[in-house]
Amino acid sequence: MKSAIVYKSPEILEKVEKVILELGHEVKSFSKPSKSLENFDFIVSIGGDGTILSILQEVRKCPPIFGINSGRIGFLTHSNSADFEEKLRNALVKFETEKFDRIKCSCDNGECLALNEIAFLGKERAKLTEFSIKIDSVEVDRLRCDGIIVATQIGSTAYSFSAGGPVVEPYHSSMLIVPIAPFRFGWKPVVIKIDRVVELEAKAGGIAVVDGKRTFETSRIVVTKSEFPAVFFKRGDRIKHLFYIMKKIE
Amino acid sequence: MKSAIVYKSPEILEKVEKVILELGHEVKSFSKPSKSLENFDFIVSIGGDGTILSILQEVRKCPPIFGINSGRIGFLTHSNSADFEEKLRNALVKFETEKFDRIKCSCDNGECLALNEIAFLGKERAKLTEFSIKIDSVEVDRLRCDGIIVATQIGSTAYSFSAGGPVVEPYHSSMLIVPIAPFRFGWKPVVIKIDRVVELEAKAGGIAVVDGKRTFETSRIVVTKSEFPAVFFKRGDRIKHLFYIMKKIE
Amino acid sequence: MKSAIVYKSPEILEKVEKVILELGHEVKSFSKPSKSLENFDFIVSIGGDGTILSILQEVRKCPPIFGINSGRIGFLTHSNSADFEEKLRNALVKFETEKFDRIKCSCDNGECLALNEIAFLGKERAKLTEFSIKIDSVEVDRLRCDGIIVATQIGSTAYSFSAGGPVVEPYHSSMLIVPIAPFRFGWKPVVIKIDRVVELEAKAGGIAVVDGKRTFETSRIVVTKSEFPAVFFKRGDRIKHLFYIMKKIE
Amino acid sequence: MKSAIVYKSPEILEKVEKVILELGHEVKSFSKPSKSLENFDFIVSIGGDGTILSILQEVRKCPPIFGINSGRIGFLTHSNSADFEEKLRNALVKFETEKFDRIKCSCDNGECLALNEIAFLGKERAKLTEFSIKIDSVEVDRLRCDGIIVATQIGSTAYSFSAGGPVVEPYHSSMLIVPIAPFRFGWKPVVIKIDRVVELEAKAGGIAVVDGKRTFETSRIVVTKSEFPAVFFKRGDRIKHLFYIMKKIE
Repeated sequence: MKSAIVYKSPEILEKVEKVILELGHEVKSFSKPSKSLENFDFIVSIGGDGTILSILQEVRKCPPIFGINSGRIGFLTHSNSADFEEKLRNALVKFETEKFDRIKCSCDNGECLALNEIAFLGKERAKLTEFSIKIDSVEVDRLRCDGIIVATQIGSTAYSFSAGGPVVEPYHSSMLIVPIAPFRFGWKPVVIKIDRVVELEAKAGGIAVVDGKRTFETSRIVVTKSEFPAVFFKRGDRIKHLFYIMKKIE
Repeated sequence: MKSAIVYKSPEILEKVEKVILELGHEVKSFSKPSKSLENFDFIVSIGGDGTILSILQEVRKCPPIFGINSGRIGFLTHSNSADFEEKLRNALVKFETEKFDRIKCSCDNGECLALNEIAFLGKERAKLTEFSIKIDSVEVDRLRCDGIIVATQIGSTAYSFSAGGPVVEPYHSSMLIVPIAPFRFGWKPVVIKIDRVVELEAKAGGIAVVDGKRTFETSRIVVTKSEFPAVFFKRGDRIKHLFYIMKKIE
Repeated sequence: MKSAIVYKSPEILEKVEKVILELGHEVKSFSKPSKSLENFDFIVSIGGDGTILSILQEVRKCPPIFGINSGRIGFLTHSNSADFEEKLRNALVKFETEKFDRIKCSCDNGECLALNEIAFLGKERAKLTEFSIKIDSVEVDRLRCDGIIVATQIGSTAYSFSAGGPVVEPYHSSMLIVPIAPFRFGWKPVVIKIDRVVELEAKAGGIAVVDGKRTFETSRIVVTKSEFPAVFFKRGDRIKHLFYIMKKIE
Repeated sequence: MKSAIVYKSPEILEKVEKVILELGHEVKSFSKPSKSLENFDFIVSIGGDGTILSILQEVRKCPPIFGINSGRIGFLTHSNSADFEEKLRNALVKFETEKFDRIKCSCDNGECLALNEIAFLGKERAKLTEFSIKIDSVEVDRLRCDGIIVATQIGSTAYSFSAGGPVVEPYHSSMLIVPIAPFRFGWKPVVIKIDRVVELEAKAGGIAVVDGKRTFETSRIVVTKSEFPAVFFKRGDRIKHLFYIMKKIE
C-alpha cells in the first residue's frame, strides 16, 4: 500500500519509515500536509494532536491515520515516540479502522471541516457581542458573550473543555454548543445529536476559528455533520484513555 | 380504548374525563398510581413531572402518557390546566407516541427503573465518601464526593442539572455521570452512550435515590439501559421547549 | 457647587439640569467625558454603567458621581430615568458619598485605572497563550488560556462574572483573579486582598482591556490598588441591590 | 510554658515530646482533644487538618496551634512527619502567631464555632429543600437545593470548594455563601465581609454540619463572626502554599 508520513520534527522519521517499509508498504514523507494526502492508503502522523488536525484540514476523503505523539497531550494519537514500533506494526497488520464524524462549517466565504470545533468569536476584542443560536431553523437562544463554540464529542476535550463544556465519549456522535464567557446569570452547555443544523449569527460581525487552524471573518455560520468523517486506526481503550488523559490537561 | 387518569389533585379531573369519554374511550381515575396501570391503553397524568415519575415507578411496560401540568416546571408534560383540552384531543386522535430510554439500577436488593436519574449518595451525611466508577467493567475514576448521579438525557434537566451537568437534548439517548460536590481540584461531567454499563461503589456504604421517589441502602449499584422505555404522546417542539423551560428553573 | 452632567443621550437632560439648578448649584453639560471633570464638585451621569466607566477613565481625583440609568443593567447607577428626581434631590441635599477602590494597571506604555477589571488577553486570537501569574513577586501559577482577568469586587458582576468568577459584595475590597477559558482539568477563581501586587505575563504577547474602554498591547502588566478610588453618592441598599440585579444579567 | 500534644496516631509522638522538652517547656499528650486544652500555652497537633478541626471544636479561647501533618492534604498544618523538627523548633523559639476568624453558628439548641464552614443541609435526603438566605436581616435569596454552606476564607478550600465556591486567600477575612446542588438555571457563590449576619432557614427542616465534626437538627441558623479566632503559629508562605496545595485536592 502507499503510505504518507507527516512529521512535525524529523527525529524518529527514519525509524518510522523503516517499520512501514519492512511491512512491504511504500512510503513518502512530508514536513507539511497537503491535499495530495487524500491519495494515500494510510497516513502516519509524527507530532501532536495539532499535526493531525492540520492533516485533517487538507483531506476531505480521509485515509486512516496513525498518530505518534511527540506533543503535550495526545487525545488523537496512538502511541508516543518511545513505544510506537510495536503499536504501529500491529495497527498496520490488523488494519482495523474507526470513523469519527466531522462537522462542516458553511458561510458566505465557502465551507470547511472540523474534527474538534468551530469557535465563532465576536469580532471586536473588548466588546460583548450578541449571538443568536438556531437549531434546525428555530431560534433557541440569544446571548451576549465572547463567542460560541460548536464542538464534536471528539472536541469535547479541546476548546469546548476550557469554556466549560462536558466531556463526551468519542463513540457518542454529538454536537456541543458552549458559549465562551457568557454574560448571563444562568447558562448551560448543551449537547445535541450531530445531525442537527446549528446556525450562529453575530450581528456585529464574527470570526470563525476552525480547529484552531483556520480563521475567517463572517457574521453567520451554519454547522452541520460532514459526510467526510475523520478515519483513524482503531484503538481499543478510548474510554479508559479519555478518563486518564483528561486529568492531564494543564 | 381503556384509559387511566392519575391525578394529584382533583380540580380538573371531571373536565379531563369528559374529553376522553367524548372521544369514545373508557376511563378510570386513580389518585395513586399502581402496577395495574400497565393494563391500560394510555394514561393521562394530572400533576407535575413528579406525578409522571411516580407513575413510571409502577409500570415496566409503559402505556403512552399524556401529562397535564399543574406543577412548577413541566419538562415531561404536554399542556397545562388551562389549555389541555385541544392538545389532549389532538394527541388522542393522532395517537403518535415517542419512547425515551429508561435506566435500570441493579443491586443486591433487586432492581428498579429510572427515567431521570439514579443518585447514589454517601451514607454518612457529614463525611466525604470515596466512590469508584466503572464503565464496561473498567475502573475509570475514583473520587471523594457527596454522591454520584447517573442520569439519562431526560434527567439532564433534573438533579444532574443542579450538580453541574450539561443539558442533553431529549432525543439523544445518553448516560450522564455527574458527581455531587466532588472534593477535587478538577472534574467534569461525562456523557456516554446509554448502552454502557456503569458500576458505582461506595465502600463506606451508600444510598440510592431513584428519580427522587425511591430510596434504598446499598454499597454498590450497576446502571444499564432498561428494555422498558417510558412512552409519551408525541410533542413536536421538544428542543425549543427545552431551551425555553430550562431558563425557568428556579 | 459646580456640577457636571455627562449624558449619553439628551432626552432627560433638561429635567436633570433643572433639579440641580433648583438646589442652587451651577451646572455644565457634556456629551463626552474629559479630564476637566476633575474640577467639578460632583458629576451626574445620564446613561448606563458604561457611561460611568467612561467618566472614570478620565478622572484620577474623582468627584462624587450620581448615576441615572438609561441602559440595560445598572450596577453603578442610583436611579432610572423615571424615578431620578427625588433620589437625585435627596442625594444632593444629604451629600453622603462612598468610595470604592480602583486598581492601577502599569506596563511599559504607562499606566491606567480601572473600576471593574483589567482583562489581559492573548494576542493571537485562535491560539492558547501561556500566562504566568505572580502575587507579591511570587509566581503562584502558570496556565494556558484565552486571557486572565484581574477584577475588583465591583467588577465581580462584569466580565469576571462571565468568566466564572464569584460575586463579591461592593464593600469587601478585593482583587479577583479569573482565567478566561483555561485549558486545564482543574482551576478556580481566586479572591485576594486588594493591597496585593498581581503581575501577569503573556510570553507570546498580550492585549490589556481596561474596563472594556481602553485597549493596549503589552506582554506584561502589574496590577495594584490605586490611590484614586471611584467616589459615588451613597446608596444604602447595595447588598440587596446586588442580589436583585445579578439575576437580571442576561 | 505548658504545652499539649494532641495526636491521631502515636508514631512520632515521642520525637515531638523530645523537641518540646529540649526547649524547656512542659508537655502533656492527649489522644483526644478536650476543653482542658484551653489552659495550655500552645498546642501541637499530630494528624491532619481533621485533627486540628477537632481541637478547635473544644476550645473557645484558642492557644496557638502548630500542626504536623500525617494526613492527606494539610492546609492548616505547618510541616509533615518527616521535616517537623526544625520547623517546630523555629516556631517555638520565635513564637510568632497569627489569628484567623472563626464563625459562630447560633440556633435554638445553642451555639458552636467553625473554622471552615457551617453546612446547612435539607433534612430529607431525596428531596429538594427550599432555603431562605438573609444578610443583615434582609432576605436576599430563596432557592431550592441540597443545602447551603457558609464558609470562611479558610474553609474556601474545604467543603465550599467542592460545592463550586472560589478560593479566597487566608488573610482576607470573608464569609462565602455557596449553595450545594442548587436547582436553578443561574446561581453564583457570593463572598461577603465576615462581619455580616447570615441567617438561613429551611422550612422543611435542616441539619447543620459544623466543620464536618458536629451535627444537629434545626430549621434555622444564624451565622456571625466569632470573637474567638483560631490561633496558629505563623507560616510565612500561605499564599504560595495555597496555590500549591489546592492543585493537590483529589
